[in-house]
Amino acid sequence: MRPNLTPDIDLAASLFDALRAATSDGVGVTRDAYGPGEQRAHDLVRAAAEAVGLEIAIDPAGNMLMTLPGTDRTAQRIVLGSHLDSVPTGGNYDGAAGVLAGLATVAGMRHAGFVPGRDIIVLAIRAEEAGAWFPTSYPGSHASLGRLPAAVLEVQRMDTGRTLGQHMREMGLDPDAVAAGKCLLPPASIAAYLELHIEQGPVLDAEQIPLAVVSGIPGSRRLRAARVLGEYNHSGATPRRYRADAAIALAELAYRLDDHWGRLDAQGHQLVCTFCVLATTEAAGFTKIPGEARFQLDIRSVQPASVDAMVDELHRLVATIEARRGVRFDLGVETGSLPSPMDPALRAALTQAAAASGVACRAMASGGGHDAAAFAQAGVPAAMLFVRNQHGSHNPHEAMRMEDFAAGCAVMTRWAAEAAA
Amino acid sequence: MRPNLTPDIDLAASLFDALRAATSDGVGVTRDAYGPGEQRAHDLVRAAAEAVGLEIAIDPAGNMLMTLPGTDRTAQRIVLGSHLDSVPTGGNYDGAAGVLAGLATVAGMRHAGFVPGRDIIVLAIRAEEAGAWFPTSYPGSHASLGRLPAAVLEVQRMDTGRTLGQHMREMGLDPDAVAAGKCLLPPASIAAYLELHIEQGPVLDAEQIPLAVVSGIPGSRRLRAARVLGEYNHSGATPRRYRADAAIALAELAYRLDDHWGRLDAQGHQLVCTFCVLATTEAAGFTKIPGEARFQLDIRSVQPASVDAMVDELHRLVATIEARRGVRFDLGVETGSLPSPMDPALRAALTQAAAASGVACRAMASGGGHDAAAFAQAGVPAAMLFVRNQHGSHNPHEAMRMEDFAAGCAVMTRWAAEAAA
Repeated sequence: MRPNLTPDIDLAASLFDALRAATSDGVGVTRDAYGPGEQRAHDLVRAAAEAVGLEIAIDPAGNMLMTLPGTDRTAQRIVLGSHLDSVPTGGNYDGAAGVLAGLATVAGMRHAGFVPGRDIIVLAIRAEEAGAWFPTSYPGSHASLGRLPAAVLEVQRMDTGRTLGQHMREMGLDPDAVAAGKCLLPPASIAAYLELHIEQGPVLDAEQIPLAVVSGIPGSRRLRAARVLGEYNHSGATPRRYRADAAIALAELAYRLDDHWGRLDAQGHQLVCTFCVLATTEAAGFTKIPGEARFQLDIRSVQPASVDAMVDELHRLVATIEARRGVRFDLGVETGSLPSPMDPALRAALTQAAAASGVACRAMASGGGHDAAAFAQAGVPAAMLFVRNQHGSHNPHEAMRMEDFAAGCAVMTRWAAEAAA
Repeated sequence: MRPNLTPDIDLAASLFDALRAATSDGVGVTRDAYGPGEQRAHDLVRAAAEAVGLEIAIDPAGNMLMTLPGTDRTAQRIVLGSHLDSVPTGGNYDGAAGVLAGLATVAGMRHAGFVPGRDIIVLAIRAEEAGAWFPTSYPGSHASLGRLPAAVLEVQRMDTGRTLGQHMREMGLDPDAVAAGKCLLPPASIAAYLELHIEQGPVLDAEQIPLAVVSGIPGSRRLRAARVLGEYNHSGATPRRYRADAAIALAELAYRLDDHWGRLDAQGHQLVCTFCVLATTEAAGFTKIPGEARFQLDIRSVQPASVDAMVDELHRLVATIEARRGVRFDLGVETGSLPSPMDPALRAALTQAAAASGVACRAMASGGGHDAAAFAQAGVPAAMLFVRNQHGSHNPHEAMRMEDFAAGCAVMTRWAAEAAA
């Protein structure tokens, strides 16, 4: 690493403040995907990138490329990316931290007069928060790579009811070009994609480690509309053997599946299993035996076999409980995704860069999904850095410390300077 | 039994039809306590009783006494009672069956020219459905005995918000007299209280027995607003050991408490235990670990020790689960009642009357509460007959067969003729 390459943390810090002020909703921040909140964030970041002297380009889907040109403009590029949208009443760091880390990195290079051997592109991606706006995974990333299926342009934003294509058109973008696969970042043109992101869980904070190199983004198998059907009866007048109690059947399923996870966890399986919703329905009430209950189940792992083992156990338990308790399970539609392992060579290089920068660092699997998954799925070598963060993510209390962010940027800068050499 | 004493089942059958027609809500029947629905039922029953030639009296709380006079008007009376209100969109038989059985019984006596040795009073009681209208137990029964605490007149009807006293006054009744304990049925004036009621559970139907003599009305210990408090976290990013999952904690409590009940049930304990509500809250959603859940618990038995054993186990489990899962239980206010055993001599006499009438009959504990409990609590010898019924109670599908009702009336008639001799 060139000894005088120092990321411009002041620039990032002032941009964090400006983003918070511009997108505050009074409680947290709201940067709605393909809406005014996200656009305000893009405008602020663009102005800062222009002031640094980067080349600006907007692709047909509205993703913004801010490029520090390299000596060989035809060589495969380095991309430092993340998203600028947030969940409603979200925090200031989820997404933005990755974009500002990229900007701090190339600004530091620019200030030092460093010219990389190949282009380094800071990428501000659209619409990553699939649970909040458009119910589809990574439309911005996929479009940036020319890989967004045309049908996805028809999904509706959950609050406005207008489609992704309509939202693009209203912003002066070009959904027809997106549908035709036109883009500025064909996968073959990218040498590596690196995304810095706040950790969304408590592990780094609990272990007092500022940084992690991500091993992979988990795959999942999910039930979003599962039900248990029993029979409503009088809670006083119905003896045990005449009951078909949907709530107790669901409690048994949840308790025993969680117990099974506990055994796998003790054996070292990397896996999470969550009953996000577990509830009797509105028809339940005092002195009634619940005749119906519903649940949502989210099982994730970077190891598909671990997810499959849990789903197998789920089906075994369902059959047992149906036979034993006179209820019927309706599991509804199962959705899911395959895991996206991060590139081993990139992971090794980032681990070395952390060591060389004196930053304590561990390996860990991601819990949530990230834009990096879309790049990995396109065959681009992809990697992620997690920065320690307090109070989780997707809420106004996200609390990444700037010194931890600076440590992440230092590792990014060291790695990018080497990779772009 | 006088061989020519036959209950007037035709009278009861035509009154069931008239009641259904007069109080239909399009789906079931709605006879709102101290409201127009209940009053229409009282008016119909009163007209029928007058046609039979019974003496009519209304007490200060609006309970209706329909008396077949005995030769000794000063002797302790026999009361054949039940209530005429229903839950909203309820069935035609819960409550009404007991009043019409009494009416069929004394009408049969009247037709035969039978004059009992003491008064036989058919009692149409107000406002028994505490879960639906006024949140207090048996206000009509207690008032009929002069035992309604004045403070209860201040409870509000759940739908109208107006107090019990206001409702009485609007109907021309006399809540001040009720508060002063004025009544027509001082406990010492009653020799015995008998209530016929549909079974609210499936036992008699499953066992193909038309009738039961009730051993007792259960006591209960209840939680109506219990909560589990954990911590909301990201379902992907939060490893098992960092979780405080309120839903799984509640599932464990419900499953293990139910399992404990299963063991007591296998040992022959008469007991029911129901999680009527078991639910994550509105704040739950996909990709979140539930930070809060709530539940309602209803534990009942005619044996107080069985109820207490379950509550002890509940508290043991709560402590274990709190320690193990990092959650906190807030059980809220516990409410409950003591059991009301039915009078042993009356039970024996009813069992004999069933045998003499050729009606198959078993003993069973009641599941729900009934007006008979108020009489038992006042020291009046009280008993109940359950009639086989399909599809439970408190719903439009209650389906008592008239031949089972007739069998119950035959037993009531035989017993009442002996008891009033």
